[in-house]
Amino acid sequence: MFLFPQQIIERKRDGKALSRDQITAFVRGATDGSWADYQLSALLMAIYWRGMTPLETTWLTGATINSGVVADLSAVRLPKVDKHSTGGVGDKISLHLAPMVAVCGAAVPMISGRSLGHTGGTLDKLESIAGFNVNLPLAAFCAQVGRLGVALIGQTAELAPADKKLYALRDATATIECIPLICASIMGKKLAEGIDALVLDVKFGRGAFMPDKARARELAEALIEIGRAVHKPVRAMLTAMEQPLGRTVGNALEMAESIACLRGEGPADVMEVTFALGEQMLLLAGVAPTAAEARQKLAAGIASGAALAKFREVVVAQGGDARMVDDPSLLPRARLQVPVASETGGYVRSVDALLVGVAAMGLGASRSQAGDRIDPAVGVSHLVKIGEKVARGDTLCVIHANNEALLAEAEVFLEKAIVIGGTPGVAPKLIEEIITESSK
Amino acid sequence: MFLFPQQIIERKRDGKALSRDQITAFVRGATDGSWADYQLSALLMAIYWRGMTPLETTWLTGATINSGVVADLSAVRLPKVDKHSTGGVGDKISLHLAPMVAVCGAAVPMISGRSLGHTGGTLDKLESIAGFNVNLPLAAFCAQVGRLGVALIGQTAELAPADKKLYALRDATATIECIPLICASIMGKKLAEGIDALVLDVKFGRGAFMPDKARARELAEALIEIGRAVHKPVRAMLTAMEQPLGRTVGNALEMAESIACLRGEGPADVMEVTFALGEQMLLLAGVAPTAAEARQKLAAGIASGAALAKFREVVVAQGGDARMVDDPSLLPRARLQVPVASETGGYVRSVDALLVGVAAMGLGASRSQAGDRIDPAVGVSHLVKIGEKVARGDTLCVIHANNEALLAEAEVFLEKAIVIGGTPGVAPKLIEEIITESSK
Repeated sequence: MFLFPQQIIERKRDGKALSRDQITAFVRGATDGSWADYQLSALLMAIYWRGMTPLETTWLTGATINSGVVADLSAVRLPKVDKHSTGGVGDKISLHLAPMVAVCGAAVPMISGRSLGHTGGTLDKLESIAGFNVNLPLAAFCAQVGRLGVALIGQTAELAPADKKLYALRDATATIECIPLICASIMGKKLAEGIDALVLDVKFGRGAFMPDKARARELAEALIEIGRAVHKPVRAMLTAMEQPLGRTVGNALEMAESIACLRGEGPADVMEVTFALGEQMLLLAGVAPTAAEARQKLAAGIASGAALAKFREVVVAQGGDARMVDDPSLLPRARLQVPVASETGGYVRSVDALLVGVAAMGLGASRSQAGDRIDPAVGVSHLVKIGEKVARGDTLCVIHANNEALLAEAEVFLEKAIVIGGTPGVAPKLIEEIITESSK
Repeated sequence: MFLFPQQIIERKRDGKALSRDQITAFVRGATDGSWADYQLSALLMAIYWRGMTPLETTWLTGATINSGVVADLSAVRLPKVDKHSTGGVGDKISLHLAPMVAVCGAAVPMISGRSLGHTGGTLDKLESIAGFNVNLPLAAFCAQVGRLGVALIGQTAELAPADKKLYALRDATATIECIPLICASIMGKKLAEGIDALVLDVKFGRGAFMPDKARARELAEALIEIGRAVHKPVRAMLTAMEQPLGRTVGNALEMAESIACLRGEGPADVMEVTFALGEQMLLLAGVAPTAAEARQKLAAGIASGAALAKFREVVVAQGGDARMVDDPSLLPRARLQVPVASETGGYVRSVDALLVGVAAMGLGASRSQAGDRIDPAVGVSHLVKIGEKVARGDTLCVIHANNEALLAEAEVFLEKAIVIGGTPGVAPKLIEEIITESSK
């Protein structure tokens, strides 16, 4: 009953829960075009308004997965685990975490996204390596996961096509920030990878999509709930995104910082989150019995050079120029590299992640609209961190630009973003909480 | 500021009022295609959710009017007044009211709609007269109002095109029942007719689009408020739509009943509403000083045959076969005419307007979906009224059908619609209230 679009929209409009069949009809309508776009967007707005029960959200996720194929990784014997971040400024963790986990004996079939708004995207960062191909066909992706234990690609047309359609509509109709829709989008894509387990990095704070900590926790719990419903272990870390992660923002700059992490020279904050996420991945994959042993394994992979070698293998396998891994100074460099000097001495009180993200976006590091072109070389490096001491004239950050006007604009944002005061600012605890499948 | 569709949708989504510029951008977007349909429908759903202030609703109405041209009736010296009904079952009043008012010295430039759902439409009823052309170009419409004092047509492409677009989207996205959207749609079209004043028949009860009396009153007040804002006198009558109006439902059947009204042989309930609406129209037009004198004028027009002659003139002017006016038995007749007999003696307790409307729709008298074809001959006649006494075997109504299966289906609905009991049912007061521009 009630499978006509109007009737389904009406039910949700009136605050009633949809049945599994109704949700399936909606998602099928998005995939095969049997619903008009204006009907899809009206229902999306009604869902934004009325929400969805956990059961509805699980059905929406299931229908999203089933709108396409699920990657067949049955030939891969290793446990398959992935990590997803809700997105932040300077969050380059996937780049080095995937090979770090792969050398510990778990396979990482990672499908990532592109930058949007003030946050970066893993694919854009990978593409700062000349030749790196993120568009492997699904079969090649599966084969590489089997061969190397890790592959890093973008969403293919076969995986969760309903999400591709619905996400584009949500972006154009102000219906992005809706927990059930976010859940179905993330989990629909991730579970289509054919993984056994998933670790989520749910960010809160100025630079996160969901700044409010309580809302971020709500999202994390809803994501875990879906995992529970489909019998996949899912854990979530709530991490702070008040200041950028690490000292760089921008594609090639973050790539270089990630390579530094693989060399054992990563910034403390990046490594803290990296190890915490990696521990959970190894625990869920069953390749380490305790968090401490997991961390030991991950650290050993860096110390031995195995993780860096694995990353290099991936770059070579996906057509990238491995010399850039060996010598990150070969990565794209901007024409202008201008330090921003402190006008006063004191302590860093705040480095506003949102403003730094907007500055980097203005330089061309990420997209303000889908379809915008990205400049891999631009961004910000040498960022100070909250609490650090600076003298008058010290460098607060370095702007990398290919255009004088954009440089001047970025400078304005960065001067607002970085606040110096008489006493040290206190950064919020980086890892707020680890929520496991049995926390609730 | 904030003229991008996403930003405007977001503002309304978050419960903020839109500015005049934002509303104008939305309506322009609907007219020139600069907004995607999915953005229009997302904003419609957000408006359904969050509502609109009286000021926003007035702006939306103004933008709807300005999306096209306004009929130029400046050459017509007479005061120009129109009537609009929110729609009901058996509501054929426009057909005879327009010529009745025209012979009293006010011009009636009436633009009407078609049937949708269980309610009928004036245009479909007019078209039951062979040859009647409801699609006059705007210039011909204006000329006829000048020549005859009345013209009865459908919406043209030039008038309020934004409403045409938005109404179709609302119909497909469950966003019809929203007071600000209804207001802008009704008033946008009606004020584009170039009228000086408007009388509204706002129906409540089982057969109305807005069954709840309080909601209907809210709608009436919102409509009057727009009139006040644009300095046009607008009055509204709240009338009951519990049982069908008159004894017929169906296009040719109602046309015949309307002609009977013009001959002075109309059913009491139809005439009661007709006179009440006509009084208000003549008062607003300033052609009668009191309601009693207005009624006298309207009754005189019927008694003298002038109103019938005026209707005949309109039929001739718009290409219709006037012989059908002279002899309504020439109107289209259904092949099957089957009485429904009472299985018991007693009193009519209820005649459910909604179920009668659904029965007539099932026979083909109105559209369940836009684009459905209409059968002018089918419907229901000889309907009993609430409170009437019936003996076992008496006719409760006569079904007019052109298909045996549809006949049987209609019979089921009608047997449910008409309830006979031991004591007479009491019909709700037909005219609940007259709300004038100064009532509030």
